[in-house]
Amino acid sequence: MHGAADILLSLFVVFVAARIGDELAQRMHLPGVVGEIVAGALLGPSLLSWVHPGVVLDALAEVGVVFLLFAVGLETRLADLKRIGVTALMVGTLGVIVPFGGASLWAHLEGFAWNKSMFIAAAFVATSAGITARVLQEMHALQRREAHVILGAAVIDDILAMLLLGIVVSMQESGVADPAHLLVVVVEAVGFVLAVGWFGTRVARKRSSWLQRPRMTMSELSIVLALCLGLAWLSTRFGLAAIIGAFLAGLIASETDQREQLEHQMKPLLTLLTPFFFVMTGVKLDVNVFMHADALLMLALATLIAVLTKLVGAYLGALKLGHRSALAVGMGMVPRGEVGVVVASLGLAAGVFTPEVYAVIVAMSLLTSILTPPLLGWLLRRAQRDDIDQRAA
Amino acid sequence: MHGAADILLSLFVVFVAARIGDELAQRMHLPGVVGEIVAGALLGPSLLSWVHPGVVLDALAEVGVVFLLFAVGLETRLADLKRIGVTALMVGTLGVIVPFGGASLWAHLEGFAWNKSMFIAAAFVATSAGITARVLQEMHALQRREAHVILGAAVIDDILAMLLLGIVVSMQESGVADPAHLLVVVVEAVGFVLAVGWFGTRVARKRSSWLQRPRMTMSELSIVLALCLGLAWLSTRFGLAAIIGAFLAGLIASETDQREQLEHQMKPLLTLLTPFFFVMTGVKLDVNVFMHADALLMLALATLIAVLTKLVGAYLGALKLGHRSALAVGMGMVPRGEVGVVVASLGLAAGVFTPEVYAVIVAMSLLTSILTPPLLGWLLRRAQRDDIDQRAA
Repeated sequence: MHGAADILLSLFVVFVAARIGDELAQRMHLPGVVGEIVAGALLGPSLLSWVHPGVVLDALAEVGVVFLLFAVGLETRLADLKRIGVTALMVGTLGVIVPFGGASLWAHLEGFAWNKSMFIAAAFVATSAGITARVLQEMHALQRREAHVILGAAVIDDILAMLLLGIVVSMQESGVADPAHLLVVVVEAVGFVLAVGWFGTRVARKRSSWLQRPRMTMSELSIVLALCLGLAWLSTRFGLAAIIGAFLAGLIASETDQREQLEHQMKPLLTLLTPFFFVMTGVKLDVNVFMHADALLMLALATLIAVLTKLVGAYLGALKLGHRSALAVGMGMVPRGEVGVVVASLGLAAGVFTPEVYAVIVAMSLLTSILTPPLLGWLLRRAQRDDIDQRAA
Repeated sequence: MHGAADILLSLFVVFVAARIGDELAQRMHLPGVVGEIVAGALLGPSLLSWVHPGVVLDALAEVGVVFLLFAVGLETRLADLKRIGVTALMVGTLGVIVPFGGASLWAHLEGFAWNKSMFIAAAFVATSAGITARVLQEMHALQRREAHVILGAAVIDDILAMLLLGIVVSMQESGVADPAHLLVVVVEAVGFVLAVGWFGTRVARKRSSWLQRPRMTMSELSIVLALCLGLAWLSTRFGLAAIIGAFLAGLIASETDQREQLEHQMKPLLTLLTPFFFVMTGVKLDVNVFMHADALLMLALATLIAVLTKLVGAYLGALKLGHRSALAVGMGMVPRGEVGVVVASLGLAAGVFTPEVYAVIVAMSLLTSILTPPLLGWLLRRAQRDDIDQRAA
């Protein structure tokens, strides 16, 4: 029973640290994730050394991130894609292509092979729209064109980023020696995503009454959780990251009639489990990396590239809205937040990233999320003033 | 990443097996727990050998049972104790004393030392009122006197059973060589339970607004989950089982204004996590034990003693209601269900129970739960007929 007591203690410490970190970050007007990761770094081996990576904590972190990406998929409405408008489509697409290209190039210039560079670049791609949505909400700007474009583009962005991540991970696993073999691997991975996504969402749309047929309690949640765990595992069999299967399961579940009920029921699970992912991300962060000027320079460069490439890509996509609105849209797409962190932890687990690269990418993801709220606020106020000027003219 | 994939696969297999077992059991009008444990026994080493005990699955099972007992505490209304009535108090108390005495005696006669016998007897004590409540509900008998007495007595029963379990576990850990030391251990354990229970519930009653103060999402749930994990760990430091701390945390949380909201939010967590506890209970069950006539005889005797002692104890407590009603109350208190199973798994983990004793106690707990619905239905119909006769006379 001693083992069980130790496990309960470490769960208690990690969970409480996460929630305190979250609370303090929010009181400092920072995203909660920042507080959770900082709490982890504080508890981890490079500082206090109270918490160490271990089988149980790592497993809980894995389940946490799988459920997190399931929830992201659940909130992605495929139906929105149809009425998303050309602007959002352009913003989402260019907002993926430019950062991916820019960051790949940068990483390659830093001395990484192309396949590693593209893995690193995958961490620069996906926007974490949650932080932007909160800023928009606080500024009562959710009804503005910019807000609609950003939130629409985030859907495209998520789907493209997951597809890209799938390709990049499967490229790592196979090695790049044989281009023909690589092609097979990539086609297999993309085929899996498209086939499961297409077939699953069609079945979900037509047969969501199936979720209510069993007599057990919470049958709907049970079935989609089983789907989530099953597809997460299955996607690893196709050389993809587990989170891609989880995201697909979320997309499928979001097509059912029970979507809102499921979103509601996922919240307690996310409250319990995602802290383990973010704290363990921090625990694995070697803070000493940033004692070296090299790493700090690399972080500064990475953050600059992350901000500029996303800003430029999304700005170009949104130019139709006018210069100032396009800038606000671009800035709204900048935060990488949890998605960048997820890619970093995948790279570390796969042995592709050194502790230094891992630390830089996690810190870059946090920095983009910290920088966005003030800058977006400033740009939005300028865009709002433009509107008032136009109405006056 | 291979390790993560293996973990996801085992989570998927265990979760799906549990839910299928639950569903099939319910369709056969058996308690869902029976299906989950049978699914575990089927997957476990003694039959299919697909699932084996392991660090991660055991940890999830531990968290599952901790949350389960937290939820039991959360559903226990201390306020009900005041208006519970003398009859329910008598039923609850005698329904604990008679089974504990009877089962201790039986286990001692089977050749176990007194401290082991009392641990075994602890598995005969706690009623699992859930199964009875469902039978009452299906028979539209929840408004009858018998139902009120049973559900009231179940509150007393839970609290006494947890106290008794605490004493018995702390007796094991200390050894029984020195009676003075034993007394200290028992006083410490009981003192911990009473002090935390008394102080915690008072604070919860007066200060439940504290749960809403933090800015983080789901602050109420986060705080009580932290309390649950913290008290579960702390109680192991006092030589108690972790579930006793979890039960106390549940009692405390049930005194807050947010009780109903918390019960609601716990449901998804229980849906995900308790299956791991019950499936792993089944996985650890060596089915081959029952290939021997000795074990089958022991099981038959244990089940007979479990049914008779509870029936007699609770019957005596309820005699004021008349012979037939008292019989129905006694039968309603018979199911041990999940609580007996929890005690069995504690005994196995502590190395106190042999695989044979473990198997017999788990099977006894299931049998009492399987036997109750038909017998209770029959006795309730007799009691209902009595009422009609009386009204006619």
